[in-house]
Amino acid sequence: MSFMVSQPLFASAAGEPILLMPGPVPIPAFIHAAIAQPVIPHRTAAFRTFYRQLLDDLRYFFQAENAHVCTMTGSGTYGMAVAIRSLFSDNDQIVVVTNGKFSERWAGYARSCGMSVAEVAKPWGEVPTAAEIAAAVAATPNVKGVIITHCETSTGALADLEEIAFAVRRVAPDVVLLVDAMTTVGAIPFYFDAWGIDCAITAQKTLMCPSGVVEFALSDRAFARLQPTHEGDFTNLFIYAIKAETANYPFTAPVNLLYGVAAGAAYLRKQSLPVIWNEVHAAAAQFRATCQQRGYTHFPQQFSDSLSVVFPPANVSADTLRGTWEAEHGIIVSGGQEEIAGRVLRVAHFGVAAHNMARLCAVM
Amino acid sequence: MSFMVSQPLFASAAGEPILLMPGPVPIPAFIHAAIAQPVIPHRTAAFRTFYRQLLDDLRYFFQAENAHVCTMTGSGTYGMAVAIRSLFSDNDQIVVVTNGKFSERWAGYARSCGMSVAEVAKPWGEVPTAAEIAAAVAATPNVKGVIITHCETSTGALADLEEIAFAVRRVAPDVVLLVDAMTTVGAIPFYFDAWGIDCAITAQKTLMCPSGVVEFALSDRAFARLQPTHEGDFTNLFIYAIKAETANYPFTAPVNLLYGVAAGAAYLRKQSLPVIWNEVHAAAAQFRATCQQRGYTHFPQQFSDSLSVVFPPANVSADTLRGTWEAEHGIIVSGGQEEIAGRVLRVAHFGVAAHNMARLCAVM
Repeated sequence: MSFMVSQPLFASAAGEPILLMPGPVPIPAFIHAAIAQPVIPHRTAAFRTFYRQLLDDLRYFFQAENAHVCTMTGSGTYGMAVAIRSLFSDNDQIVVVTNGKFSERWAGYARSCGMSVAEVAKPWGEVPTAAEIAAAVAATPNVKGVIITHCETSTGALADLEEIAFAVRRVAPDVVLLVDAMTTVGAIPFYFDAWGIDCAITAQKTLMCPSGVVEFALSDRAFARLQPTHEGDFTNLFIYAIKAETANYPFTAPVNLLYGVAAGAAYLRKQSLPVIWNEVHAAAAQFRATCQQRGYTHFPQQFSDSLSVVFPPANVSADTLRGTWEAEHGIIVSGGQEEIAGRVLRVAHFGVAAHNMARLCAVM
Repeated sequence: MSFMVSQPLFASAAGEPILLMPGPVPIPAFIHAAIAQPVIPHRTAAFRTFYRQLLDDLRYFFQAENAHVCTMTGSGTYGMAVAIRSLFSDNDQIVVVTNGKFSERWAGYARSCGMSVAEVAKPWGEVPTAAEIAAAVAATPNVKGVIITHCETSTGALADLEEIAFAVRRVAPDVVLLVDAMTTVGAIPFYFDAWGIDCAITAQKTLMCPSGVVEFALSDRAFARLQPTHEGDFTNLFIYAIKAETANYPFTAPVNLLYGVAAGAAYLRKQSLPVIWNEVHAAAAQFRATCQQRGYTHFPQQFSDSLSVVFPPANVSADTLRGTWEAEHGIIVSGGQEEIAGRVLRVAHFGVAAHNMARLCAVM
């Protein structure tokens, strides 16, 4: 399955708004061209050949040579919820790091599934240290899992996942480490195998795709935890993961969206991840330099190259700025959610946004 | 939100296979053009304006002026499972009509959710009468719901939904009537309001879209049955339905796929449903006439204009025919599943397929 790459890759049509939000993300023309290819039936050798290549490219994407990878129709929230239901059972003890809207959602969802959740809670914008998390894990008897949000998309706070994974593994060798990697993998360094992650989840953001497909990498440990239920149980990761071992998909596959994911993953592989990480870093650095010149300040202490969450200069309203940028320059960034609603600007530096940072910096 | 309609609407590119399967379905260029439009953020007035129009077009599509309509990311199977979980509770008594692969899946799924299922079971290819179903409903104490597959996509057998709905309502006025309409609504006459359906579900087939979005119509009775759970509970129809009342979507909306659904629904509305139904009927009639001339016979006794399932002429293998048609003519039809695997051909007459029936008839 080939796809066209049109040049320039990331050009916006005249008059088209410049989306710099962490989601939804703008979609380059080569992804749309891939999606528009004729659909192939999903119970054929042609589909399996296509899907096998996609899964292989996702292994590169996650830096997960030894992992089981699979995809499913759904949003990132859907993927996290499916993983929580599938990897853990009622009454399992799990530790969840909470420091923002999304990580709090995972804790709440795990509780609603009947799991016993010990939270390592931090104020929005902060992240716990590896030692704090390891201590909480050590203090939780019979702990089955740890859920960490690598970069909290609501605050831009970045956890030091490598250190955390190492520290957690020392105190709980068999624990399943589940990671929300939605605004990190494909944007900043992420090493599934080397860090010893058990389940990493992302959706469309860094793959520059429309929402609708979620991607999973699973270690042998996580894969062994999965158990069959009913064949129609779309909330069981087992069905998707076991079918993916033979490059099959259990239900009607979202073939056209998978073409888009394949085009995104192949693009990232062809460029190479370090080249992509450098592009994102350069965009973030340019934005930060402008922030410093113009009096914007970062909300999180430990921030990510993939996503900046900043306070505007003193006496300037974040929402007024957003309105002005959109009305006068066609530039759209996100505002804050819940407790930081109206107070911050959220700006993505990955994907198409990495190529449009100069346009934002020019008007800040 | 507008979309281009290119002419001719349903032309295939040279060398592109001609898909006549009930799924996946081929996607016309105007749908792909709609999907490729710039994404709009889903928490904006622009999205709500777009979504409100889409929901209104879906009300026309379902002939459900009084209904609550909503969409969600997922496949048709996902949609049915979400509806079963959301409309019924553990230990609820429900009646499920089973006569093929998909209807059997709904019964199995309801059982796996803890519901008490009384099956009205028929051999594959047959359908129970309205009287049989009404008798089963009357014989089930405290019955909460009835699940009917309008056209069994595995066999092509068509239930007389209007009569069934009327008969069921007479014996159980408050029962929730849940209908798998995946190969009927948008292809053959379907009247949600007039027939008194409580929940009808379809996905991408007759809307000529890529897989990834499922659409629901809900009566007041069904809507009142929905109950809030956890905000992250993507398996609860309540969240999607209540948000849709104000043209909102609860999670990250599949905006680009919704553009496709909107284009499909707007196309069907502009053509008008009777015109579409007549096109499908004409395609089915042409196929049936060819079947009669060439010695193909219908598997179900009560068949649908939307989908034919036929035995090949005596001494001809269905799978050999499928292989020859694909290799020599680029025409792809489906084979049988499970107990009729290798014995039948399954041919869709709706969507793009309605415009390609002559090409199949020429080689039969």
